[in-house]
Amino acid sequence: MELTFSPIGTISSCYKEKFGIPRQAGLVPEARATLQLLAPFNRAEAVQGLEAFSHVWLVFVFHQNLRSTWKATVRPPRLGGNQRLGVFATRSPFRPNSIGLSAVKLERLEVSGSRVVLHLKGVDLLDGTPVLDIKPYLPYADCITDATGGFAAEPPARNLEVFFTDRSREAVLALEKAGYPHLQKLIIETLRGDPRPAYYKQQPQKSDFGCRILDFDVRWQFLEGRIIVRELVSHISRPL
Amino acid sequence: MELTFSPIGTISSCYKEKFGIPRQAGLVPEARATLQLLAPFNRAEAVQGLEAFSHVWLVFVFHQNLRSTWKATVRPPRLGGNQRLGVFATRSPFRPNSIGLSAVKLERLEVSGSRVVLHLKGVDLLDGTPVLDIKPYLPYADCITDATGGFAAEPPARNLEVFFTDRSREAVLALEKAGYPHLQKLIIETLRGDPRPAYYKQQPQKSDFGCRILDFDVRWQFLEGRIIVRELVSHISRPL
Repeated sequence: MELTFSPIGTISSCYKEKFGIPRQAGLVPEARATLQLLAPFNRAEAVQGLEAFSHVWLVFVFHQNLRSTWKATVRPPRLGGNQRLGVFATRSPFRPNSIGLSAVKLERLEVSGSRVVLHLKGVDLLDGTPVLDIKPYLPYADCITDATGGFAAEPPARNLEVFFTDRSREAVLALEKAGYPHLQKLIIETLRGDPRPAYYKQQPQKSDFGCRILDFDVRWQFLEGRIIVRELVSHISRPL
Repeated sequence: MELTFSPIGTISSCYKEKFGIPRQAGLVPEARATLQLLAPFNRAEAVQGLEAFSHVWLVFVFHQNLRSTWKATVRPPRLGGNQRLGVFATRSPFRPNSIGLSAVKLERLEVSGSRVVLHLKGVDLLDGTPVLDIKPYLPYADCITDATGGFAAEPPARNLEVFFTDRSREAVLALEKAGYPHLQKLIIETLRGDPRPAYYKQQPQKSDFGCRILDFDVRWQFLEGRIIVRELVSHISRPL
């Protein structure tokens, strides 16, 4: 049996590449995205009443992980990348059906003619993600307070110290004034969770990394247990 | 863009028809189902570690609601069936993409050769439901304690009194001994939520209903604000 679905909307996210994306929704409150509904779903009526909900579920497609093969086990970063677990016991993006699930904060609903846009916070979504469904978050059904969480019972540690060089701090502050508000907060919240893949954590010789966030390559170093943001390189014009 | 998915498993549920199914997961704790993985996904490795989680998300297909048309608004039963809301502001099974989402209790994992079966409780799933994905429920990401729930902030009332006639009580007790344990509890939990469609609530002249639960037509009456279970008619052999 094959089932065919069409996206009802597309994500524009602050995360422009996979590296650096938080590993669940809600971990980086400052991570923003918009979800614009595609025709023929871009009708004000289709979202009528949604603004009464603080959070929504997005059922989406891991569009950069689409493949025809699958593996029964994966190595979750939470377990240091060494231990294998069944793919259905993890939220890995590498799944038999490349479907993702995120509960994100609905900041605002923008409806203007055929433009129907959800403004979201706390996303773990890649730019360009196709969305299959939006559902309201229903606390009485979805917030299971006595659920126990196996290997991921506690939230992942997100307590790395993030420093800026004088140069990168100046660049960030200038950019905040130039139309990228909260940029510093977004970078700190993203990096303090240590986005390095597990296999790099065991190879300390590699210490220079870069994440594409908004319009910038954020270049940072992992040094003696801390993260140092060295520079932001614009994708639009010149190095900053 | 069209995206094609194949079910990874199939639900065998106590609910054999749509009428009577609780309107969210968790509302009827006694509602049981199994999810059997289909080949080639029916491998022990694929669920390795899942038993450490108390609850799982199922991403499934509303297979009896597949259709090529869609409506921008629906009338949620919670609002008495009169008020229209955007389809994306509800959890209605009538959606542009017929994808459902339920957090259910994982009672037990059964793995024996190529038989890989999840034993579930608290389901709101129709028998035969195709499942696209299983994901562990992660309390730190999924249980959003400060979420507010719009028109469905509180759980729906589920406080109707459910009575049995002498005849139906005898039948239920005999069936519990004959291989249908907890049948009475399942019937009570299912019916006390008032499964009647909203439009019948405004037409009190219709008072006789039947739900197919397990192997039985459970025939009941709505009378003066109470539910009376009148008889159970077996789908296997003779009336009970």
